Amino acid sequence: DMITGLYVAIDADYLAGRDIPAVTREALEGGCRLIQLRAKTASTRKFLALAVNLKEICLEYGALFIVNDRLDIALACGADGLHLGQTDMPLSQARRFLPPDSIIGISADTPEQAVSAQNEGADYVAAGAVFPTQTKPDVLFGGLSGLKAIHQVVKIPLVAIGGINKSNFYEAMQAGADSLCLISAVLGAPDIKKATSEFITLMEAAKID
Amino acid sequence: DMITGLYVAIDADYLAGRDIPAVTREALEGGCRLIQLRAKTASTRKFLALAVNLKEICLEYGALFIVNDRLDIALACGADGLHLGQTDMPLSQARRFLPPDSIIGISADTPEQAVSAQNEGADYVAAGAVFPTQTKPDVLFGGLSGLKAIHQVVKIPLVAIGGINKSNFYEAMQAGADSLCLISAVLGAPDIKKATSEFITLMEAAKID
Ligand code: NI
Repeated sequence: DMITGLYVAIDADYLAGRDIPAVTREALEGGCRLIQLRAKTASTRKFLALAVNLKEICLEYGALFIVNDRLDIALACGADGLHLGQTDMPLSQARRFLPPDSIIGISADTPEQAVSAQNEGADYVAAGAVFPTQTKPDVLFGGLSGLKAIHQVVKIPLVAIGGINKSNFYEAMQAGADSLCLISAVLGAPDIKKATSEFITLMEAAKID
Repeated sequence: DMITGLYVAIDADYLAGRDIPAVTREALEGGCRLIQLRAKTASTRKFLALAVNLKEICLEYGALFIVNDRLDIALACGADGLHLGQTDMPLSQARRFLPPDSIIGISADTPEQAVSAQNEGADYVAAGAVFPTQTKPDVLFGGLSGLKAIHQVVKIPLVAIGGINKSNFYEAMQAGADSLCLISAVLGAPDIKKATSEFITLMEAAKID
């Protein structure tokens, strides 16, 4: 499956003031093949320009490029997929306009939401925050048991997100995560390429069958 | 032409706490046949739900329904058009995805931007703020002479926007505006239906050929 291993969320707000294409390239150099772009506060024009840039870079590395929230940006940059939260566009609406093979991922807070997403044809479900986080401090989620509960009810790939780092990632994998979505554990590292490749090595070594 | 007369911009932020579909219906009851929806701070899901609702109401009245900024919302609600500012998606990108007969309007601050919009196939150009305004207090624009300068260089319909009210609308029409886009002059009135129909009567009486 394509939704597996390390998934890096490039958050333009988190990365404010940094060279976002260069940061993305470092994660790709480190071996990441799954990139999501978020830019909640950018203008549509800036978000699109960044998305076009990152899509091109991801293509160089054979990595999947997924846009957060915005169908318009996903369409216009030719993204491989769209990630939708519960307050974003409904999946069925997005599917009407995306190219047939596009990946659609859905954030689910509960097993009920995860099952709905699967039934509506989501390609993966993302659940979290599994651990406390500063990027999304306002999220209430059942932690590892919340993740396990979702794992028990869906067959599509499960992405764990939120506060995952080297000391807790194994618990998320044990709870059933097929992929781990990281922001600060990779983008906050002094050497992003090194942090990425170390994480991938750790995940490979810990792989649960 | 369809882009003529009164154009009411339904601004969800300006209307926070009010019943937006009811407000829109009042403007339509007053005779407005050109509605734009803006919701800069709403989630995609809320913006879309509102857009679907207003599109349906506009259809009842045979009014055009235009979405501000967001191609995704315009597509998903089946809007008649999309209004793009200079920091929104480029016109050429939006045109790729919209149904063939969709209206695309562009905000232009200068004659150069207006000419570019026309050359790229815009259906109308909107210029302003023509008069000082509280809705967009940070905008620098050449006022009535800025509007005249744009009128001199474009053939597509010209929409004047910003601070227009009963005491200054005639100057905007004299400067070449085919349509006047209002927010507070209508939506801030105690009786929206009455304010709308009064404005339309004034504009009809003042029509310049
Ligand atoms: Ni599993």
